[in-house]
Amino acid sequence: MASKKRPYEALKALSVSTSVLSSTANILGWDQETYMPEEATELRGLQLERLADLMHREKTSRKYTRLLSQLVDLESGTIRDTSLSRSQQAAVREWRRDYLQTVKLPAAFVRKFTKETCIAIQAWKAAKEKNRFKDFLPHLKKIIDLSRKKADYLGYKDHPYDALIDLYEPETKTARLTEILDGLKNPLTTLLRSIHEKPKPTFDFIHKGYPHNKQLEFNKIILDAMALDKSFCRLDETIHPMCISSHPSDIRITTHIYQHNPFINILSVIHEGGHALYDRHLPKEEFGTPLGEPCSHGIHESQSRLWEAIIAHSLPFWKYFFPKLQQFYPEQLHGVRLEELYQAINLVKPSLIRTDSDEVSYNLHIIVRFEIEKALIEGTLDAKDIPEIWNEKMKQYIGITPKTDAEGCLQDIHWACGNIAYFPTYTLGNLYAAQFYEAFRLKHPEWEQKISHGNFSELRHWLATEIHRFGREYLAEELCKKVTGKPLSEKPFLDYLQNKYKQIYP
Amino acid sequence: MASKKRPYEALKALSVSTSVLSSTANILGWDQETYMPEEATELRGLQLERLADLMHREKTSRKYTRLLSQLVDLESGTIRDTSLSRSQQAAVREWRRDYLQTVKLPAAFVRKFTKETCIAIQAWKAAKEKNRFKDFLPHLKKIIDLSRKKADYLGYKDHPYDALIDLYEPETKTARLTEILDGLKNPLTTLLRSIHEKPKPTFDFIHKGYPHNKQLEFNKIILDAMALDKSFCRLDETIHPMCISSHPSDIRITTHIYQHNPFINILSVIHEGGHALYDRHLPKEEFGTPLGEPCSHGIHESQSRLWEAIIAHSLPFWKYFFPKLQQFYPEQLHGVRLEELYQAINLVKPSLIRTDSDEVSYNLHIIVRFEIEKALIEGTLDAKDIPEIWNEKMKQYIGITPKTDAEGCLQDIHWACGNIAYFPTYTLGNLYAAQFYEAFRLKHPEWEQKISHGNFSELRHWLATEIHRFGREYLAEELCKKVTGKPLSEKPFLDYLQNKYKQIYP
Repeated sequence: MASKKRPYEALKALSVSTSVLSSTANILGWDQETYMPEEATELRGLQLERLADLMHREKTSRKYTRLLSQLVDLESGTIRDTSLSRSQQAAVREWRRDYLQTVKLPAAFVRKFTKETCIAIQAWKAAKEKNRFKDFLPHLKKIIDLSRKKADYLGYKDHPYDALIDLYEPETKTARLTEILDGLKNPLTTLLRSIHEKPKPTFDFIHKGYPHNKQLEFNKIILDAMALDKSFCRLDETIHPMCISSHPSDIRITTHIYQHNPFINILSVIHEGGHALYDRHLPKEEFGTPLGEPCSHGIHESQSRLWEAIIAHSLPFWKYFFPKLQQFYPEQLHGVRLEELYQAINLVKPSLIRTDSDEVSYNLHIIVRFEIEKALIEGTLDAKDIPEIWNEKMKQYIGITPKTDAEGCLQDIHWACGNIAYFPTYTLGNLYAAQFYEAFRLKHPEWEQKISHGNFSELRHWLATEIHRFGREYLAEELCKKVTGKPLSEKPFLDYLQNKYKQIYP
Repeated sequence: MASKKRPYEALKALSVSTSVLSSTANILGWDQETYMPEEATELRGLQLERLADLMHREKTSRKYTRLLSQLVDLESGTIRDTSLSRSQQAAVREWRRDYLQTVKLPAAFVRKFTKETCIAIQAWKAAKEKNRFKDFLPHLKKIIDLSRKKADYLGYKDHPYDALIDLYEPETKTARLTEILDGLKNPLTTLLRSIHEKPKPTFDFIHKGYPHNKQLEFNKIILDAMALDKSFCRLDETIHPMCISSHPSDIRITTHIYQHNPFINILSVIHEGGHALYDRHLPKEEFGTPLGEPCSHGIHESQSRLWEAIIAHSLPFWKYFFPKLQQFYPEQLHGVRLEELYQAINLVKPSLIRTDSDEVSYNLHIIVRFEIEKALIEGTLDAKDIPEIWNEKMKQYIGITPKTDAEGCLQDIHWACGNIAYFPTYTLGNLYAAQFYEAFRLKHPEWEQKISHGNFSELRHWLATEIHRFGREYLAEELCKKVTGKPLSEKPFLDYLQNKYKQIYP
């Protein structure tokens, strides 16, 4: 038995060693977004390129290949070492998936991709600031060309987009995504339209001045409540909020502060905090193996959205936090009632900005991006036409049109990062979140009371135990069945939305 | 000709590639000092260890060795490719020096050293905070043992300390250092004692409250005046100020703010700013070759001390900056005269803290450390006895005794970083600074007027042209002769001190 486990342990050691490099790249990525001096962009490109190159070599080395082949038939996926435990076999299955994805991408291509996205990120920042899509266009074109090439390298049966989505949401297909998103489009536009007809009060208190420093201070209360201690979790500011985790001991989330709306920041912190909790509860001892890695991007997003969209937009949550917030901003929130606050933060008033938008329109934002990037990858849309089609789709699905590209197609960093096919995972995240939430409520009928006392420990514990600790042991849909007893469905999400907004907009 | 240059270009390419990794390690080092969450210490150790290991492999690879051997006889140092330019030959000479130093240190030893110092830095921070030398002692013992082992690996003729100083100040010997430092000890203690007998006014204004944020804001004025733009140079806060440069495009300096003395911070920023200007003006196109690297630690320190100790402690400097400072702190500096400020910042009142100490006693601090670490490396002093001997020497040379180890032998980060034999370069820096400064004044007799108008461009230009742009083309003492026409001597420094303090304490 012991001798049979040797290749597994040897592969694990190699994999840990490479993960140490990838955790290094994460720190550089974080630094680039937060504190790096602007002139260092070119050097940062070289640094990330070097690390990507080293990682690529290590993940495709002869030694690595030999060890993996001892554990699994690379062709068929049949496990060779059947003395491995169930979770170890799952780790091998995922190592094989990563390996096949990696060997299909030539090292020179990976280097080029890393370098181009590094430059594109800076170009995107400048272009967004100056509202000049055409400054970003040549970089975006390169990214799209490289992404198409990537799909070709990875291989696909039905659609080149399949190859790309597989990188984020293993074994999910474009056809299935189209089905899910199309299934949401009608109920969501219908719900949106029905709410649109209802009278809506205005909530001026939201847009009063909320000083930067006060907002930063209030964030500490949120992080405390979520048990995100500064000993392992930082919070900084960037244009676009994000969570960059290198290890359960080094998690870095960011937010963006708007002085004339404190809730954007609060909800961003909670969103990224949800991601952070997932990464915090991945098993440390499995760092470097698939069992120490998050299941999929959709599952990751389910954690952030469960906290942000479901918990932090609920009445019990604010029953606890609103009095605290009023202490911070006695003038700005003077005389505001809890119910008003609840209505205000759940106001269904479509926003141009995905991250600021309400739950009802949020997934319509995703559908806009999904349809555009699917067309870009198919080659049925030229990148130069993005602003036009973006604005058309926004009008058609959400009913509003961006005045500038900065608040339109330049709003997100994802394309600059080369993350084509990433957006749909946001919607999968919402669906998983609602389905998980339904299961949690069944097990914990008293949750509302706990939350209204600022006690999130049961929820944290449940998520850690039911979801986080498994890493990539189960595929996303398997995990969903395991946790909720049912396959993924849009029903829990639509039920949740319809029940909630029926009460808010009777 | 072209074909002969091929190995040089190939070696340069390899060297650049490794420097990209070392620039990555610098960013991790900076992050560790500034923003890294505490729990991440262990992972950071693994990350730095991995990078050190990779760099060690690359600098000793067969390909690297073969290329270098084509350019130079590794045994004798005779250049083989005589078609190389003078500066290229110097680069090859320095590549050989680095190579020999590297191959003598086994990869496993380098890994261990990096890891232990990474842990020791955290231990030092905690021990200093709690004033518990014994918490740091086991780590310090490890560092000393490892440093002795390092000297053994590197080899030496007369003294194990020779091998260590060679890492910072190539071709400088312990005997020569002892001679220089002994040559300074008497004149300095004599000057210190003579000043001690003079009446000294008190300057209460210095110790009023100077708010943290205001100090940070004033730093921007300093950075502007030194042309250290945020596009390539950051300023953050750490316990011990430092300058971490990855490339001329990415330079990070840090400071420490004391609310009850604004000058410590200002002078730290100028000190680190002096380092930053050196790194900024190293030739970018030589990044990765010795021609793009600083000459020696002593020369680097000469740049920081020239700015901090000579320029920023001069009357013309404050003629320009004092009115600005008064605008920042109208209450705290109300009614204070320029001459009082000048006397106050040049007050000779020995401090326990090296970085806060006056010019007269500064080098006596170095002598304390030099004598202690020389004895530690010789094995004539046990690390556990450091606090006792430290306090004795402080009393004997400087006339004061630390009350706590935190303000005694725990004050500096250097030993935790494994930088044994680094301290003497501070004194070399002071000597070089005074000698360079004498040469600059001869060429620019009108300098005082320029500086009193806040115009530092001539000085910046002179330093960049005479010193910075050569990288490691010349050895430190060669560079000194080239710039000043004379070999290194303590005379310019002692002349400068005696002239200056004769006026302040007549």
